Amino acid sequence: MQQTPFIGELVGTMIIILLGNGVVANVVLKQTKGENGGWIVITAGWAFAVMFGVFIANAFGSPGAHLNPAVTIAFAVLKNDYSNVFSFITAQLIGAFLGAVLVYFQYLPHWKATEDPGSKLACFSTNPAIKSPVANFLSEFIATIILIIGIAAIGFSGTSDVQRGPIPSGVAPYLVGMLVWSIGLSLGGTTGYAINPVRDLGPRIAHAILPIHKKGSSEWGYAWVPIAGPILGAIVGAFILRMFSF
Amino acid sequence: MQQTPFIGELVGTMIIILLGNGVVANVVLKQTKGENGGWIVITAGWAFAVMFGVFIANAFGSPGAHLNPAVTIAFAVLKNDYSNVFSFITAQLIGAFLGAVLVYFQYLPHWKATEDPGSKLACFSTNPAIKSPVANFLSEFIATIILIIGIAAIGFSGTSDVQRGPIPSGVAPYLVGMLVWSIGLSLGGTTGYAINPVRDLGPRIAHAILPIHKKGSSEWGYAWVPIAGPILGAIVGAFILRMFSF
Amino acid sequence: MQQTPFIGELVGTMIIILLGNGVVANVVLKQTKGENGGWIVITAGWAFAVMFGVFIANAFGSPGAHLNPAVTIAFAVLKNDYSNVFSFITAQLIGAFLGAVLVYFQYLPHWKATEDPGSKLACFSTNPAIKSPVANFLSEFIATIILIIGIAAIGFSGTSDVQRGPIPSGVAPYLVGMLVWSIGLSLGGTTGYAINPVRDLGPRIAHAILPIHKKGSSEWGYAWVPIAGPILGAIVGAFILRMFSF
Amino acid sequence: MQQTPFIGELVGTMIIILLGNGVVANVVLKQTKGENGGWIVITAGWAFAVMFGVFIANAFGSPGAHLNPAVTIAFAVLKNDYSNVFSFITAQLIGAFLGAVLVYFQYLPHWKATEDPGSKLACFSTNPAIKSPVANFLSEFIATIILIIGIAAIGFSGTSDVQRGPIPSGVAPYLVGMLVWSIGLSLGGTTGYAINPVRDLGPRIAHAILPIHKKGSSEWGYAWVPIAGPILGAIVGAFILRMFSF
Repeated sequence: MQQTPFIGELVGTMIIILLGNGVVANVVLKQTKGENGGWIVITAGWAFAVMFGVFIANAFGSPGAHLNPAVTIAFAVLKNDYSNVFSFITAQLIGAFLGAVLVYFQYLPHWKATEDPGSKLACFSTNPAIKSPVANFLSEFIATIILIIGIAAIGFSGTSDVQRGPIPSGVAPYLVGMLVWSIGLSLGGTTGYAINPVRDLGPRIAHAILPIHKKGSSEWGYAWVPIAGPILGAIVGAFILRMFSF
Repeated sequence: MQQTPFIGELVGTMIIILLGNGVVANVVLKQTKGENGGWIVITAGWAFAVMFGVFIANAFGSPGAHLNPAVTIAFAVLKNDYSNVFSFITAQLIGAFLGAVLVYFQYLPHWKATEDPGSKLACFSTNPAIKSPVANFLSEFIATIILIIGIAAIGFSGTSDVQRGPIPSGVAPYLVGMLVWSIGLSLGGTTGYAINPVRDLGPRIAHAILPIHKKGSSEWGYAWVPIAGPILGAIVGAFILRMFSF
Repeated sequence: MQQTPFIGELVGTMIIILLGNGVVANVVLKQTKGENGGWIVITAGWAFAVMFGVFIANAFGSPGAHLNPAVTIAFAVLKNDYSNVFSFITAQLIGAFLGAVLVYFQYLPHWKATEDPGSKLACFSTNPAIKSPVANFLSEFIATIILIIGIAAIGFSGTSDVQRGPIPSGVAPYLVGMLVWSIGLSLGGTTGYAINPVRDLGPRIAHAILPIHKKGSSEWGYAWVPIAGPILGAIVGAFILRMFSF
Repeated sequence: MQQTPFIGELVGTMIIILLGNGVVANVVLKQTKGENGGWIVITAGWAFAVMFGVFIANAFGSPGAHLNPAVTIAFAVLKNDYSNVFSFITAQLIGAFLGAVLVYFQYLPHWKATEDPGSKLACFSTNPAIKSPVANFLSEFIATIILIIGIAAIGFSGTSDVQRGPIPSGVAPYLVGMLVWSIGLSLGGTTGYAINPVRDLGPRIAHAILPIHKKGSSEWGYAWVPIAGPILGAIVGAFILRMFSF
């Protein structure tokens, strides 16, 4: 089989969701080793999830490693080239769904051990700390702009520095992971920082389908926020970057 | 629009305050995901805030990325060149103010959810653990000297090492973030480590202006400490560096 | 004495177990400085344990630094070369046993201070959060596949990137440590992530032999899971990599 | 003034103790921002303390940056060159004493706020979790061997790797910090990991001299353990390295 961008985007996004929702399961499900591990555990887990999602996406054929429709859309707007948008987002959504299925199997004995259906849903989709659609949308919008500009700034680093040359191999995916850690710590306290439409939608579909023990509602009423906020943030982020001719 | 040092300093400082005060809001405001996350969350959040402030300042036109009047003054004293001091500090102050405004919007529903006006002010300005102007001034003074000498030492690394060459691109901003993490963990326990006059002043102005739900005093009586301590620390730090002909 | 791969594998695995089980002892034994330090302490400790196991294995003669029969088997399957499998696994098992003996001496006064025999066993071998052999096997199987593919992806990084060249020295062992941190945070909540047959077996033998104060059962009934899960995960991981012609 | 190895060792060790004992003060003294921050805060703080001690020692004239008599003795034994031992240890002891004095001033209002004299001493010297001179000695001895071999392994990394070349500038001090984090997390639970004779002796002298509010005993009865353990560990570590012709 050949490494291709489609395969890379699919596998990389699957890894992000397996590792990212995996750490949420570890902290919020009952009788796990990481029960009540706190925000530092969750945000560190998501940082490394994205980091190794990028490494693995690279290895499976996607050198750009978007793994997020917001990133795909932002770079499409920035380069005015929309040719990959549909195939990338398809791959990302499939990957996100499959990653959520893997989390279900990884934490198999713990669904029964956990009473609260809200805790179970949290292992799949984001939910806001305080429900307030406009404010929640704004949170996702701002956080995604920071993600887009941060990624661009990491990529920029060294490009104009003759003496130092480009960022060494392996360091850029590491820094992208740190950026996601930063966003989680600082901006994630309100909505749980989806900042990626498929990160929320793929697992929400999985939650609706999978035979999770005594699961509750999949909360489809909130589903538009972590889709619309990141997409609009991506577009605005791309326009800011264009304005400064990146 | 052109990237310029003024734009870079403004945007980079705005990012520092958005991400830095964002993590404080996440930990001290009520009903957030990171509520009571502890000192490791706050110091990690500030470390990454400075790290990505530097990356983004570089990308928006400030290759030196001071983002802090203490750093600007220290390098001005060190190089005996005061030409940028006024414009850089102006950009930094505007950026710090705008970053604080963004924190207000990012955590919009949580101001009402939080009773204590002191907790709300903590999301903007620093306040001392034990009020004692002289000791608080001394804390900020010592911590800022370490910041200045630490930044100089990171910059020095590799300059005299023919075999290894300069620090690779992307690694220096990362190390500056780690330096701020270090100072926060070790020296921040007394005054909350402003170590940056605009980090405190910009958000304090924002606190005074913004329509925060049931906000308390902006505590202007303390405002001189996180301005004077860092500035004097910067000057003394620069003289130490000059003494050793950096 | 000569550095050889056998010595490197033995010493490196000994270091992993000394540092890895050392952090568990610090968190679960009584009256230690790190008592109840939580999942972030345990997973960080294991990450650095593997990182410095790799550095030290390199220095003592094993440039590949497997330190884990799952890694040795995966690369044997991948390269279809089984010549080192027996000697490497022998070295790893001896090293793991010796590392566990060192943990016993490092925490000497704390075995008597700790009542619960389960806590004492936890300083040697893994035990599942919820006993369920099939699910526990599945957890170890999935986590080991991620380990194998993650290591391959780190190794891949930069090999096809002419401008950046290979990952710089020192960065790859660091990233392998981060990968283990990621797996621990995200996938370790169920079985305590052995993901390495000798990591569990070597210390379990040590637990059975050592004169630990009021020790309980060595739980040999569970011992097959952290051996079989990782070995099967390694084989499947290798086949996935072969399928994509790594 | 000229940068010299003596100045570098003195300033670097002063920084280690200021930042290292600073984080202890932040966690164990009362009414600080980091009160009860836990083992992750303390070990992270010490890791960065050593990291920036090394950067700053390099910048002030000590390219080797021992900052620890155990490291100085180990390299003297390894290279059979004892010419620097006396001057380096003198510089390190003065630096450690001065660093402890700075911690006293940095946390000035918190000595009165803290009742327990043991907590105050902990901001200067190490004390064992369970007093047992032989076991405590053994802990310091083992941990220091790991420190010496770990440092040698970091230094070794890349020296035999033509393709990758030496570790890039800035990365080696970072990795030494991570090594100290590892030792703290995994081996520090018993004695608080002095692994450095002056790290304990310098601050203990400062504790005896400084006018700390209602201070207790400086516990000189224990002072020989964190001196003798690390020195013997250094010598044995060096012999292990010589045995393998490093």
